Amino acid sequence: MTKLGIALIGTGFMGRAHSNAWRQVSRFFETPLEPELRVICGRNPETTREAANKLGWLEHSTDWETVVRRSDIDIVDICTPGDSHLPIALAAADAGKAVFCEKPLANSVAEAEHMRDAVVKAGVVHMLCHNYRRAPAVMLAKQIIDEGRIGRIRHFRGTYLQDWIVDPEAPRVWRLEKAKAGSGALGDIASHSLDLARFLVGEISEVAGLLETFIAERPLPDSSQTGPVDVDDAALALMRFHCGAIGSVEGSRFCPGRKNYNRFEINGSEGSLSFDLERMNELEFYAEEGPRSGFRTILATDPSHPFVQAWWPPGHILGYEHTFTHTVLDLLRAVEGSGPFGPTFEDGVANQRVLDAIERSSDAGTWRSTNIQGPREGAK
Amino acid sequence: MTKLGIALIGTGFMGRAHSNAWRQVSRFFETPLEPELRVICGRNPETTREAANKLGWLEHSTDWETVVRRSDIDIVDICTPGDSHLPIALAAADAGKAVFCEKPLANSVAEAEHMRDAVVKAGVVHMLCHNYRRAPAVMLAKQIIDEGRIGRIRHFRGTYLQDWIVDPEAPRVWRLEKAKAGSGALGDIASHSLDLARFLVGEISEVAGLLETFIAERPLPDSSQTGPVDVDDAALALMRFHCGAIGSVEGSRFCPGRKNYNRFEINGSEGSLSFDLERMNELEFYAEEGPRSGFRTILATDPSHPFVQAWWPPGHILGYEHTFTHTVLDLLRAVEGSGPFGPTFEDGVANQRVLDAIERSSDAGTWRSTNIQGPREGAK
Amino acid sequence: MTKLGIALIGTGFMGRAHSNAWRQVSRFFETPLEPELRVICGRNPETTREAANKLGWLEHSTDWETVVRRSDIDIVDICTPGDSHLPIALAAADAGKAVFCEKPLANSVAEAEHMRDAVVKAGVVHMLCHNYRRAPAVMLAKQIIDEGRIGRIRHFRGTYLQDWIVDPEAPRVWRLEKAKAGSGALGDIASHSLDLARFLVGEISEVAGLLETFIAERPLPDSSQTGPVDVDDAALALMRFHCGAIGSVEGSRFCPGRKNYNRFEINGSEGSLSFDLERMNELEFYAEEGPRSGFRTILATDPSHPFVQAWWPPGHILGYEHTFTHTVLDLLRAVEGSGPFGPTFEDGVANQRVLDAIERSSDAGTWRSTNIQGPREGAK
Amino acid sequence: MTKLGIALIGTGFMGRAHSNAWRQVSRFFETPLEPELRVICGRNPETTREAANKLGWLEHSTDWETVVRRSDIDIVDICTPGDSHLPIALAAADAGKAVFCEKPLANSVAEAEHMRDAVVKAGVVHMLCHNYRRAPAVMLAKQIIDEGRIGRIRHFRGTYLQDWIVDPEAPRVWRLEKAKAGSGALGDIASHSLDLARFLVGEISEVAGLLETFIAERPLPDSSQTGPVDVDDAALALMRFHCGAIGSVEGSRFCPGRKNYNRFEINGSEGSLSFDLERMNELEFYAEEGPRSGFRTILATDPSHPFVQAWWPPGHILGYEHTFTHTVLDLLRAVEGSGPFGPTFEDGVANQRVLDAIERSSDAGTWRSTNIQGPREGAK
Repeated sequence: MTKLGIALIGTGFMGRAHSNAWRQVSRFFETPLEPELRVICGRNPETTREAANKLGWLEHSTDWETVVRRSDIDIVDICTPGDSHLPIALAAADAGKAVFCEKPLANSVAEAEHMRDAVVKAGVVHMLCHNYRRAPAVMLAKQIIDEGRIGRIRHFRGTYLQDWIVDPEAPRVWRLEKAKAGSGALGDIASHSLDLARFLVGEISEVAGLLETFIAERPLPDSSQTGPVDVDDAALALMRFHCGAIGSVEGSRFCPGRKNYNRFEINGSEGSLSFDLERMNELEFYAEEGPRSGFRTILATDPSHPFVQAWWPPGHILGYEHTFTHTVLDLLRAVEGSGPFGPTFEDGVANQRVLDAIERSSDAGTWRSTNIQGPREGAK
Repeated sequence: MTKLGIALIGTGFMGRAHSNAWRQVSRFFETPLEPELRVICGRNPETTREAANKLGWLEHSTDWETVVRRSDIDIVDICTPGDSHLPIALAAADAGKAVFCEKPLANSVAEAEHMRDAVVKAGVVHMLCHNYRRAPAVMLAKQIIDEGRIGRIRHFRGTYLQDWIVDPEAPRVWRLEKAKAGSGALGDIASHSLDLARFLVGEISEVAGLLETFIAERPLPDSSQTGPVDVDDAALALMRFHCGAIGSVEGSRFCPGRKNYNRFEINGSEGSLSFDLERMNELEFYAEEGPRSGFRTILATDPSHPFVQAWWPPGHILGYEHTFTHTVLDLLRAVEGSGPFGPTFEDGVANQRVLDAIERSSDAGTWRSTNIQGPREGAK
Repeated sequence: MTKLGIALIGTGFMGRAHSNAWRQVSRFFETPLEPELRVICGRNPETTREAANKLGWLEHSTDWETVVRRSDIDIVDICTPGDSHLPIALAAADAGKAVFCEKPLANSVAEAEHMRDAVVKAGVVHMLCHNYRRAPAVMLAKQIIDEGRIGRIRHFRGTYLQDWIVDPEAPRVWRLEKAKAGSGALGDIASHSLDLARFLVGEISEVAGLLETFIAERPLPDSSQTGPVDVDDAALALMRFHCGAIGSVEGSRFCPGRKNYNRFEINGSEGSLSFDLERMNELEFYAEEGPRSGFRTILATDPSHPFVQAWWPPGHILGYEHTFTHTVLDLLRAVEGSGPFGPTFEDGVANQRVLDAIERSSDAGTWRSTNIQGPREGAK
Repeated sequence: MTKLGIALIGTGFMGRAHSNAWRQVSRFFETPLEPELRVICGRNPETTREAANKLGWLEHSTDWETVVRRSDIDIVDICTPGDSHLPIALAAADAGKAVFCEKPLANSVAEAEHMRDAVVKAGVVHMLCHNYRRAPAVMLAKQIIDEGRIGRIRHFRGTYLQDWIVDPEAPRVWRLEKAKAGSGALGDIASHSLDLARFLVGEISEVAGLLETFIAERPLPDSSQTGPVDVDDAALALMRFHCGAIGSVEGSRFCPGRKNYNRFEINGSEGSLSFDLERMNELEFYAEEGPRSGFRTILATDPSHPFVQAWWPPGHILGYEHTFTHTVLDLLRAVEGSGPFGPTFEDGVANQRVLDAIERSSDAGTWRSTNIQGPREGAK
């Protein structure tokens, strides 16, 4: 099988998750091309060397600019904080590499557009890593919607709730710095809900946003001093979709007991769907069928469910990291020519427009347009 | 035991539920005074006579104006559509009767204030029937909050979802007429969520609302013609509370599979609570207690739980109508002098201010103040 | 409407539940005859007088033998401990009254047969109060089975778990005395599961039982002394049904957190059903329909569901005591001539045979026949 | 790091699962020794070659007898049907290799004892793969029990339900042949429940069993003929434990909708636990703490929970195959000298004794001793 050279930039949580996906994808799926984990890049030489050993990379480097131009690299996988997505993506596109980027695509609409323009101009494959689209239960939701089984969509209700900074003594990590993370719960977690909303319902036309920071000052990591939190602790919005549906979204890291509660409910004219990432192998589906109707819990582990056949028999559940494996599988397919597969950088721009409109609306206290023109669909 | 004469105005769904409460309360609770179901009033003589027989009233009448002035009537219970609450309440107050009124209190803030002023001036006991406050699980939530067990409240998330008019051929009943009902999902069901928000979290200071009507024309009942729907099919709002919490609320009758899904979640700095009326005997409670923490399902049927001791042993669940029985129990206590118990007509005014602000905000496309001044508490 | 005189023997928990059913049935249902709560009988004059007042009975008496012969009494309702069911039922039958009896019918097969023979010989209406048959969700399960929607039944799995005597200091009440109660968890709660097994699956042919007493000595109520517990704390059995299905049943009062966990699951060749009394308005139903199948939660509150139309709109749940109201409704129908309705005293005999076989099997350490001859059905 | 040579015998479902565990363990955990996937053995050369490529093995062979004696092999991992466990284990022990064996250990007590004796005599590390012990939620249950938080155990209730042969046209695969599989649902799935019972509660002293075959004849795979099913389709048993607890267990493949429903509930004198493999990241825990008690859902994804720290942040769930990774981690630790870790072949013998007693009891129609002498504990 033809090998494909992968370079991964970033050694943190996402670096670990992507490394696993690259290692595992050809062990379970018939991939058109076999990824080879060639180089992992990080800032700290020692940390990067250890990550390479641990995560299974052939080489390691602190010089991503050189790496992304190497002729034996085919895909550049960006797992760094949001403030460095732009330069890496531009360099990779310029070098003619396929670009795979963690979400959110960028820290502003302008950056996102710049990146989108670069990959389009370079004619390279581009994909954004909103991995939850590829939980089998979410893909099944998409199929059920596309088959018309819940009819015309009227409501989307998305929440992504966590509790890891409820404690006011939790440190001011980079995700709480606007310069690095762009925003707080909005870009980190609400963005997942919004990507799912766009994936499952369609484009969002206008929003009313509410951003709130509960704890404005926190201890700096490895320091006896405190520093400001200049991102949102919680982000809420009401939304109107181009298709006529209405909805709401909320991201918060201040919800005790909610560990990774990425939940959505969609109501159509004929039925409803709901999903909760903490039970990510399950999809709740209601079809109006008279007095024996009820929300049914579909355990999305049947060989006929998306991506499942490669794994285990029915009832043997998948874990969090499988969603990344499914995503890189489709990226490989895109590189091989079967693509593009969404979310692309076009989706990244649209997602960023929604985040931006929520911020603008929250500042202004009025509804704001997303400046997304119509109900067009992204890539499959 | 001293008997108390009750007059009930209205023979519909609420009339049935209130009649049951009046019949049952002294069979289970030690009531300070024994209610006697003296007169039920309706517009149609035949229907009213049948209702009296069926529901256990001694007399029936089509002339509520005379009835509410009778000397053998002590409490006037108003179960009519919202457009007639005002005149009945004014007459009852004028006659010195205790007034018990179905929610929403009125169809406008001005009406609500008029009613509140009348009962205050007359010095009569007044109570609004937001029965869900008195589900034992909701009262338990209130206790847990008051004990500080979830800490400082940060989030309220309320939804009240139903599906009874998803079918576009469902008839244009009075609840879909603005002149009679005042509003649609907003006043009918979102108002319950908002009352619970005020009960459990505190006063709401400002809102961003979104009202939507999906089906603008429906068949008229008992007619071959159609008529306009001039109320909202769905109502959403973002909210800020005086205490610093933020929240959202949604009422919709367009959610297939959700039959009576009055659900809320509250997140505080130390824990969380959630409740779903479809499982009204259960309260979900999360207290942060380290790695053995989890949302616990409290089956609110212990003798120590509010109102439960009068009923059955643990695990023998209560039904919908019990919430009314508990409400009239506290009304009797208020009449006997142990009150007032909320929600009073003061709460009715505050609730109406929130509904009004949501409508104004939805019209204007901007946040609107509720004109509620501070985090004051209603009656117990 | 013709009135029917009711005499109720017993002022305890069941007396309260039956009184409520008699009071409420004609308020909600179109009953063929109207029950009148004529006399309640108890042993203690004061307690009985108070019960009469509280529960709505016209008269009270300590002399049930006279009462059951009064010409103005039509139905005798037996709510006493099991050791007195026989004499009351015999006297009532002898007097030509319809007999309604709490479960278990008797404390032995011989007693049960004696009672069954007496009512059959007297030609009076007889009904056993296994109220859980008439939870709407259970009736719906019966309908689904009868329609063949789960196919041929293969498995029944019943548990009835409580926790009220986990504490070894809980007093030795009458339910823990063999002379009064007949047995412990077996007759008190496992008997409910067994009645449901017979109702939904069919007759049981043989069993392997296991009875266990964890705490053999307990404080006597209102005493400083202790007394022996000579009934089972937990009762388990494996079962074979005449229809070829196999199953298990368990009753225990030693399961912390299980308050009234009367749960069953039934698996057929085409689908499955499960029910839990703590969520008694819900039925879980799985129909094999390919990859979009899942256990669906039917909220059994639709007007088309059994008994529901008389109550509230969809999603407004019923409580424990409603099951009694439905049972006396069918008893009234039986008296009016539309019956018999099960469970009858024939069912009581069959139930007792199963309890007896479990006890014999537990003693012997081998399987035992129930001595029930075939898969015959009881009354509707 | 020192490398350890692994030889895996078997290329089927379990071969895939074990291969993944060997590949992944050092990528996430700090393993004392690094496993190298040296040789995979199978019967069919082509299939085995493909498996080697796909699953990441350096070599492949059809001659396990030679392979298990190679000096570069340290651990022999047996993933074949039960009828070949004995010869492979004996050869591996004789060659001084650590032996890792899929469950059930053997097809009879005699075989199991033979294997146990061989590994003990050879002084080699031995471990049985009952992977579900090492789901974090199950390990957490063990910790909670060992801390005494549910008190003295009274009840164990285990079911392992699937539905993959409900269809009578499902083929007669090797798992339905007694000669190969030893038994049906009993050894395949009920054995998991029994191993968990022994792990969490203690040794089982006697049982009353019931084995049933619903479909006695099925189509042979790749054939137009049918063949007999000579194993049980469902296996049930009542149990007594040496510690005084009582329990039940059931395995069935005839439960529509139950895909991999390995569920247990344990009730002690102070609390209860329950677990369901279909939601394997959750543990239900009830501690008696007064009127705010309830079953709490612990999402067993906290870094403090067993094995979790190596994976992802809280709320990012693990999948089925992670249980194997945890098992081989402990096997590596045992080989390095930190062990033994259970389940060992001693546990395999005890498990086999229980399976055997259930079969004997089912044949005889009476209770049977397991011939396990006391409440001893296995390895950690």
